[in-house]
Amino acid sequence: MGPHIVSSFDDDLIAVQARISEMGGIAEDMLSSALEAVKNRDPKLAQEVIERDKRLDAIEMEVEQLATRVIALRQPMAGDLRLLISALKMASTLERIGDLAKNIARRAVYLASVRPVKLSSSIVRMGTQTLGQLTEVLDAYTSKDTALAVSVWKRDIEIDDVYNSIFREVVTYMMEDPRTIGLGSQLLFVAKNLERIGDHSTHLAEMIYYIVEGTPLGDERPKGEPVGLEGF
Amino acid sequence: MGPHIVSSFDDDLIAVQARISEMGGIAEDMLSSALEAVKNRDPKLAQEVIERDKRLDAIEMEVEQLATRVIALRQPMAGDLRLLISALKMASTLERIGDLAKNIARRAVYLASVRPVKLSSSIVRMGTQTLGQLTEVLDAYTSKDTALAVSVWKRDIEIDDVYNSIFREVVTYMMEDPRTIGLGSQLLFVAKNLERIGDHSTHLAEMIYYIVEGTPLGDERPKGEPVGLEGF
Repeated sequence: MGPHIVSSFDDDLIAVQARISEMGGIAEDMLSSALEAVKNRDPKLAQEVIERDKRLDAIEMEVEQLATRVIALRQPMAGDLRLLISALKMASTLERIGDLAKNIARRAVYLASVRPVKLSSSIVRMGTQTLGQLTEVLDAYTSKDTALAVSVWKRDIEIDDVYNSIFREVVTYMMEDPRTIGLGSQLLFVAKNLERIGDHSTHLAEMIYYIVEGTPLGDERPKGEPVGLEGF
Repeated sequence: MGPHIVSSFDDDLIAVQARISEMGGIAEDMLSSALEAVKNRDPKLAQEVIERDKRLDAIEMEVEQLATRVIALRQPMAGDLRLLISALKMASTLERIGDLAKNIARRAVYLASVRPVKLSSSIVRMGTQTLGQLTEVLDAYTSKDTALAVSVWKRDIEIDDVYNSIFREVVTYMMEDPRTIGLGSQLLFVAKNLERIGDHSTHLAEMIYYIVEGTPLGDERPKGEPVGLEGF
């Protein structure tokens, strides 16, 4: 991002980036705890995740105010302006990831109140994979590592595949035992939320690439083919 | 928005706003056609909706480039900067609404390939209500009518309620006839997509309020209480 004459402008940029990293850490932690709440049937932990989301909303607003103020007061050049505009987009994406984790936590409260099903373990496995992608993309942001960002971006197709196979598994399960339809519907939504968190991680990867390289990553990303019943 | 000395800056602002209105029109049209495709079991129309989404993605990128360029070249004051930053957020929200409409269109292709169910008509009714909200919030943007924006914002709770009742209706239907589980799951996702489009319309209402009034709308919005099985 090159040196600036006025050092406090650098401080401003560092402050914006620190807030984004903080948001990333909270989102990661919310997803991890939401999965643990599903796994251990722990409504108390789920409730904590739901509460934490407020902090994420508050920091998003801070990032917006800070970035807008910096843009208004300084006259950032191309690279810095790109960083600030991208920070706004990243903050909004991280806030949405937090929302999805909160949604999973809410469903975890419900899942803990009904009888346990084996299916939950497939979902938790998918969740662990999704969490791994999120962690890597946040590392890529911290280290400005575009190769790592591109690798996350390319691997989203694996999560799409797992999602499609879980969709089939849950529908089959519901068909075999119609008493599980209410429960199964909740699991479908949890899987869908994870798939969307995976999508958002690829959006973050695109933004990181753009911040560092100054050109868009392009849209050649491999995508899972939706067939028949899958939840595309 | 006050008068400016350099009139071409006004032209820039008008150009950004025109793009946002164009995106709004396309998103509205995509949702309307996707619902028609579900209603009339029309996979060809659904395919057209899927194609149109590319245009929306392209304009979002244009808005981003245009707004960034205007911010970089001019030094917009508070009100104009707010308008430009909000334009970025509105473009991103409209792009997401388009994505959701595309997703409904994809499911319409599937729904047209299986036997018709009465349930679809409840979904289409919910869709018409959601479309009405989107149309009104876009009108509020064009006319800078914050009272209309606030009215859309407050009425989202009605869509949440319809969503919850459709969720129960579809789950009951699947329980009565397990052969409809695959189909029912698709309908649940269509309803969920509509509920999210409703949420995004409230986000647009918040942005419009902020552009015009310069203060946030606050978060006192009434929300439907998720109970038991509903798809929160």
